[in-house]
Amino acid sequence: MKFMDVHHGMTGITAEQLRAAQAADAEIESEEGVHFEQAWADPDSGTVYCLSEAPSREAVQRVHSRTGHPADEIHSVPLSV
Amino acid sequence: MKFMDVHHGMTGITAEQLRAAQAADAEIESEEGVHFEQAWADPDSGTVYCLSEAPSREAVQRVHSRTGHPADEIHSVPLSV
Repeated sequence: MKFMDVHHGMTGITAEQLRAAQAADAEIESEEGVHFEQAWADPDSGTVYCLSEAPSREAVQRVHSRTGHPADEIHSVPLSV
Repeated sequence: MKFMDVHHGMTGITAEQLRAAQAADAEIESEEGVHFEQAWADPDSGTVYCLSEAPSREAVQRVHSRTGHPADEIHSVPLSV
């Protein structure tokens, strides 16, 4: 299933910090059956969006929590165009 | 520039409705210099995310407004991985 998760409060996030967070997730994601496909960040509003393929919302959160950045919202997005 | 816009209140949106909204945007987007690349929907929470390449936040909103579904949030997302 596809999920879009959202992180708030990341004001000022840099490209390097986004890459480091993504790399940390990528290192352990397979242990939870998750694959993070893409992520986008708005440093001004401090918002980060992550698109993943995962077995459940909980699995997405386990990866983000283990790497120190739990998501504030996790939405199943079964529809896409 | 890349933008992620968010629509709330779309509870129960169907695949057909998402495709129709995307098709309506696609028909006029070039008039505003916008290209909507991908969109994802969560019918349960009624949330829709649209990723676009556009000259400005206002241009994104002009397309969505002209087709009858203005966005609730539009974030510039200069960073991506």
